[in-house]
Amino acid sequence: MELKNYFPIWNQLTETQQKILSDAAVSRTVKKGTVIHNGSEDCVGLLLIKSGQLRAFIRSEEGREITIYRLFDLDICLFSASCMLSSIQFDVSIEAEKDTDLWVIPSEVYKQLTAQSAPLSNYTNEIMASRFSEVMWLIDQILWKRFDQRLAAFLLEEAELEGSDCLKITQEAIGNHLGTAREVVTRMLSHFQSEGLVKLSRGVVQITNLQRLRKLYPYHRD
Amino acid sequence: MELKNYFPIWNQLTETQQKILSDAAVSRTVKKGTVIHNGSEDCVGLLLIKSGQLRAFIRSEEGREITIYRLFDLDICLFSASCMLSSIQFDVSIEAEKDTDLWVIPSEVYKQLTAQSAPLSNYTNEIMASRFSEVMWLIDQILWKRFDQRLAAFLLEEAELEGSDCLKITQEAIGNHLGTAREVVTRMLSHFQSEGLVKLSRGVVQITNLQRLRKLYPYHRD
Repeated sequence: MELKNYFPIWNQLTETQQKILSDAAVSRTVKKGTVIHNGSEDCVGLLLIKSGQLRAFIRSEEGREITIYRLFDLDICLFSASCMLSSIQFDVSIEAEKDTDLWVIPSEVYKQLTAQSAPLSNYTNEIMASRFSEVMWLIDQILWKRFDQRLAAFLLEEAELEGSDCLKITQEAIGNHLGTAREVVTRMLSHFQSEGLVKLSRGVVQITNLQRLRKLYPYHRD
Repeated sequence: MELKNYFPIWNQLTETQQKILSDAAVSRTVKKGTVIHNGSEDCVGLLLIKSGQLRAFIRSEEGREITIYRLFDLDICLFSASCMLSSIQFDVSIEAEKDTDLWVIPSEVYKQLTAQSAPLSNYTNEIMASRFSEVMWLIDQILWKRFDQRLAAFLLEEAELEGSDCLKITQEAIGNHLGTAREVVTRMLSHFQSEGLVKLSRGVVQITNLQRLRKLYPYHRD
């Protein structure tokens, strides 16, 4: 499959613009666990996901992490090309959560095209607004939701993404998604276990009562 | 003074586009304390500040507030025109913190112009990226900075904005800026007072030791 089959608003670009984009885009496969983009150190380019799953996260000075959003098939990752926009003054890292096939579009090429094309620039705006919405959702969660609710929400999301109630994930990784120390995750998971919501074993969280977990998190994302 | 003296990238618009913008923009004065835009209920349009000060904030279901950023002379407020971008899925409210003179540009007009003009669309992108950066700074603060540091940072910012060490602000208002209950603010301010950093009286926080307050908050925003 070619880029044009993946790229939104392809038909709103001129033939020349389409050619520039096609010529510049590089197809790449990244293994699960690869950090594709690491803060402001690099500017690898826009990522257009063919299939797979990425997470965007930030790191504290002390090395703690929090996932700010996830990207799936056909999503575009802008912040791996943050050098494209001078007003982006923060560092996001991008990691593959599953083996991922993607297109990389060099930042300079994309920047040149948005300078010419109002449709492409407006589309970029929509992508940014959509990420912005996810980050605002996150602020709402961090500030005003209890940790048991956030953990329940995370387990439910994972179960949906994996298509399984048996989640192979360490408590440290959960902490890195939620911006919380591992100890806090361990304490709450143990509480969940004593309540019969989950069953814990090394590197595995087995959801044993999906309904009650959902009851704990009655909020929806949209 | 006319719109063209305030509007950035004016010279990159065509004459027709300039005329559309000039004809549509309405000059308005809002009193301190006015809520100009209230979540998704309305879509008053883009705000371009001539002089004054606005704050953008979000509200929890329980009515708690947190300031997500502030806007000053020549800043543009996009989220008061959030209906312009379909991907904006969150509610921001905008309140005047000082008497403010501004231009209001109807959302529909601005949307039409960005559809035609790549420079305007790219500029809009930069504004959004810049707000995004402020919100990412906020997440960093909420997650990883201690409350004493956040309160110190807020008092220092206020002192700078007001050009005075004597801040006329209630403890409830401080709580609404920082997303914290008034009681938490009161406790920390009392601690600051016992440490000789501030002196408290009804509706007033007097900074008595600027240097030590700065020491408490050695982080800089950029």
